[in-house]
Amino acid sequence: MGGYMGKILRVDLSSGTTKIEPISEEIARKYLGGKGYATYMIYQKLKSLEKEGIYPADIDPLGEFNDLIFATGPATGIAGFPEPGRYHVMTVRSPLTGSIGSANSGGKFGPYMKFAGFDIIVVEGKSDKPVYLEVVDGSAEIKDASDLWGRNVFDTTRILSDRVGRRCSVACIGPAGENLVLFANIMNDEHRAAGRTGVGAVMGSKKLKAIVCAGNTRPKPEDPEKFREESKKANDKIKQNPLTGEGLTKYGTAILVNVINNAGSLPFKNWQTGYNPEADKISGETLAEKYLIKNHGCWGCTITCGRVTKVESGPYQILYSEGPEYESIWSLGNATGVTDLEAIIKANHFCDEYGLDTISMGSTIACAMELYEKGSIPEEYLQGVDLSFGNSSALVEMVWRTAFKAGFGKYLALGSKRLAEMFGHPELSMSVKGLEMPAYDPRGIKGIGLTYATANRGGCHVTGYTVAPEIAGLPEKIDPLTEEGKAQWVKAFQDFTCVVNSTVNCLFTTFAIGAEDFAPMLSAVTGWDFSVEELMKIGERIYNLERVIINKFGFDAKDDTLPPRLLKEALPEGAAKGHVVDLDKMKKEYYEIRGWVDGVPTEEKLKELEIEL
Amino acid sequence: MGGYMGKILRVDLSSGTTKIEPISEEIARKYLGGKGYATYMIYQKLKSLEKEGIYPADIDPLGEFNDLIFATGPATGIAGFPEPGRYHVMTVRSPLTGSIGSANSGGKFGPYMKFAGFDIIVVEGKSDKPVYLEVVDGSAEIKDASDLWGRNVFDTTRILSDRVGRRCSVACIGPAGENLVLFANIMNDEHRAAGRTGVGAVMGSKKLKAIVCAGNTRPKPEDPEKFREESKKANDKIKQNPLTGEGLTKYGTAILVNVINNAGSLPFKNWQTGYNPEADKISGETLAEKYLIKNHGCWGCTITCGRVTKVESGPYQILYSEGPEYESIWSLGNATGVTDLEAIIKANHFCDEYGLDTISMGSTIACAMELYEKGSIPEEYLQGVDLSFGNSSALVEMVWRTAFKAGFGKYLALGSKRLAEMFGHPELSMSVKGLEMPAYDPRGIKGIGLTYATANRGGCHVTGYTVAPEIAGLPEKIDPLTEEGKAQWVKAFQDFTCVVNSTVNCLFTTFAIGAEDFAPMLSAVTGWDFSVEELMKIGERIYNLERVIINKFGFDAKDDTLPPRLLKEALPEGAAKGHVVDLDKMKKEYYEIRGWVDGVPTEEKLKELEIEL
Repeated sequence: MGGYMGKILRVDLSSGTTKIEPISEEIARKYLGGKGYATYMIYQKLKSLEKEGIYPADIDPLGEFNDLIFATGPATGIAGFPEPGRYHVMTVRSPLTGSIGSANSGGKFGPYMKFAGFDIIVVEGKSDKPVYLEVVDGSAEIKDASDLWGRNVFDTTRILSDRVGRRCSVACIGPAGENLVLFANIMNDEHRAAGRTGVGAVMGSKKLKAIVCAGNTRPKPEDPEKFREESKKANDKIKQNPLTGEGLTKYGTAILVNVINNAGSLPFKNWQTGYNPEADKISGETLAEKYLIKNHGCWGCTITCGRVTKVESGPYQILYSEGPEYESIWSLGNATGVTDLEAIIKANHFCDEYGLDTISMGSTIACAMELYEKGSIPEEYLQGVDLSFGNSSALVEMVWRTAFKAGFGKYLALGSKRLAEMFGHPELSMSVKGLEMPAYDPRGIKGIGLTYATANRGGCHVTGYTVAPEIAGLPEKIDPLTEEGKAQWVKAFQDFTCVVNSTVNCLFTTFAIGAEDFAPMLSAVTGWDFSVEELMKIGERIYNLERVIINKFGFDAKDDTLPPRLLKEALPEGAAKGHVVDLDKMKKEYYEIRGWVDGVPTEEKLKELEIEL
Repeated sequence: MGGYMGKILRVDLSSGTTKIEPISEEIARKYLGGKGYATYMIYQKLKSLEKEGIYPADIDPLGEFNDLIFATGPATGIAGFPEPGRYHVMTVRSPLTGSIGSANSGGKFGPYMKFAGFDIIVVEGKSDKPVYLEVVDGSAEIKDASDLWGRNVFDTTRILSDRVGRRCSVACIGPAGENLVLFANIMNDEHRAAGRTGVGAVMGSKKLKAIVCAGNTRPKPEDPEKFREESKKANDKIKQNPLTGEGLTKYGTAILVNVINNAGSLPFKNWQTGYNPEADKISGETLAEKYLIKNHGCWGCTITCGRVTKVESGPYQILYSEGPEYESIWSLGNATGVTDLEAIIKANHFCDEYGLDTISMGSTIACAMELYEKGSIPEEYLQGVDLSFGNSSALVEMVWRTAFKAGFGKYLALGSKRLAEMFGHPELSMSVKGLEMPAYDPRGIKGIGLTYATANRGGCHVTGYTVAPEIAGLPEKIDPLTEEGKAQWVKAFQDFTCVVNSTVNCLFTTFAIGAEDFAPMLSAVTGWDFSVEELMKIGERIYNLERVIINKFGFDAKDDTLPPRLLKEALPEGAAKGHVVDLDKMKKEYYEIRGWVDGVPTEEKLKELEIEL
């Protein structure tokens, strides 16, 4: 099995023991690795718990039965594979949503897990006291982390790196994860985030502060010559593509700010409209012009969209930071009506320092701002802060307040769904299945609305990024303003994204390359002979198994929906003025194509995909 | 015993029990109440611990043997007594200094303790879980505070007030106390602070979140007619005095900013000089002109120096706050070189919200700034913050970072002495006995230098405020720039201040009235016949007993000193240019007048004062 280390590290924090299990070749062939293999493991966990009489809906996301899985795939850490620096994190359930927990991150932690000898690390149970996991050269040790508890992400990373005393990578939680903020991240390599569905709170509930990985072994392609040849072709396409070869490199992901705003789909002030007349103030171009020091790519990456930034002076001065990415600029800035890019850089910095999901953080603040402007939050809850839209200082303050649950931060730490319910306006949470949606208003980009509604983990853009064809015209241009034909696109993108997240490499490669490039490269790496059809079937298998899992938690067609604002309130201005989302139309078609009834896969479909229940 | 409720509430948090003991008439006559009675109780505690083989130097300030005492005096809560809204807090040892813990606060908590039926509340032992104490109508209950732990001061106060459902007063700790920040406050009535020597950390170590007091009984003077007559005379003097009748009312304590700056004694940039050319930007006059909404006095106060303030907009916007006082403006502003009054208001607000001593907080940040400018703090400790003098945003951020021990806040939370030692420059901590000194440079006001050096609790101005005669000319003008004759003034002020803090009423009354006014008023209240001489002897007794206690902790003449900067570096500019403090000269004279040898009271002196060891 070229590309794999062949080993799973299983850590039981309740008993304080570790053991090593082999990767199953059969499962790897069916689910690749990363998200796929982890989803399979989660399903097995649910089955074993059911045998003990513990049913899926009874599993406390912050309890002892919620496994936390770090998973690489056959491409992770393979030099030359397009953008192979990523890893996937999964938990049985998300504390934010109650659905499956799923997040993905770059940096170098994924490769270093493999260099340390493991494809997958599974953390079970809970520790009584703070611990961290040291994984070095094929063995693992659970160590005391009392002195690290309370430390921020940067300090924790630095201290553990110094302690290991060699090239290593650290994934850890910050105070947000320790304090069980429901959308806390796992952070690696300081500024990289496994940042959705609150996987950091799960790690915090286990009192696991960090995992540090170091080692000298390297995963290798089974057929190096064929791999060189195939990967060169793919990398050439990436270099020649205007987005991956130039746009993302030069302006980072925030190149999208102006693009999406011009499409009238950049959600502004908690999605009251999709157009911000001042969007250029917070664009990737402005960021590059005023605050960019240099790029900082993930391990083995040629795109290097990561930003290193600095604010020289003023109230939001910060001498060194990384980011913010497009999504962070949007959520912390545009969604909150804040167009002071310096405040956004500072707010983003705090999200990284304390380990907070920027999308959920900004969106939850935006929700609070609308609640505030509607008079639903009593003054005495706010410690003197004016929560009006556009207030930069309130934005920055609310971020660290959330990490420490300080004052109003205690409520923000619950995410927008609980917050909006608590203050009497559940309709103001712009979330799906409890997960805050990202930076594209589906009233102007219809396909992404179907992706949001049907994503297994909740309001998610990176499990079916139809923005590529709808806006960027990749691989071909389709009309963003129609619901027609979107179901097929969404299904194909969801399935293929499962392949990417199980490979595991960077989704941005797919702007330039597709399954026809992945298949020969993965074949060269693994030594298996993948066809495009087999890869797409693997993707569909993973997506369906994940759906089976969330069905067990009670999610079905009723939850495959969007906030009422998107279904009923037409966009008041911009390129998509007058549009709402006709979700029912797309959903009906989508379920048919999927072979699902009311959001539940049929037995025939599961059989066809060789999913054993 | 008019003026007393006659009862002490003793709470043992280790066993979860409470009991009620009588106030001793004998002890009350010898020590009055407040600080005096509490000091007596601390001495008794030390004696009883010694019998068990636990010696003073072995007492952990955050351990089970460190009693926490809330003490009112015969004037507290007596309507008509000049400014009777205060109470005193003492602990056996301070976690910041290792010396005695002592702090004093206004608001209404002192009176409400009495209305609830108690003169003194003693908290012993430690609870395993967060608790609060509800003291209502003469009885007390220890209650679960799990839901309050982590809450800020404002929320805690509001929630407990709502829960009690009647007029009450709450004293509590914020996150700083919970997190054992070594200079954490106990806060009462939201913005009032018992704010020196880290009494909040002691409360936090006991897991005691709050004390709430309510009740309908009222302390009464023994001789109402005589009291009316005597108190009227005193109150008339207070009204006629330019400082207590007008200056403090109009401009608050910050009226001193320009006055002390003009005396060349407003410590600037960690005491590198005593003159700030921009001081008027942060003066009481500017505060009143731009940010003051109204006054907010303590219970029964006519001076009402307390400020209610607001910053309308901008990065430090705050819709409602109280303060800042002179000391807070100085420490958070002048000492750090920050002249942005809005940033100071915000920083002060965070100190109140989280329960931090403003003097120690600002001074510790100032110390860190000098360390930073001297290149002694590595960049990677600072999370991208530029700690240069004058940086407003760094100031504000470092305050909340300290409360949560976030990043560099972990080091600031230790106070300036430990911080300066940790980063290799102990001489840069502007503290005495580990307690940061307040806002008067003794190179320009010599007498206050002797007060700082000899204060039992460490660098303290309010146990012998010779600034009154040296600067304000009250009761008479003396030359601030000479050491001559200061020992006698310091001793008299220290002794009389013990009377005030045991009475307990506000020290500001002493700008207008003296022992000759206190004696008849206290006689009318208690029914005892106090002469001026007896009162002054009581004060001396208290000061000496306190000295006996700190001697037991190992403090003596070697600790009665000032930072080397004040002894060796002449002020470079301003009205006191060229001056240092000749401390040895004053100390020698002081010890002689005190009847002390090497900082230790002689047996003769103790006998003369009827102190029984």
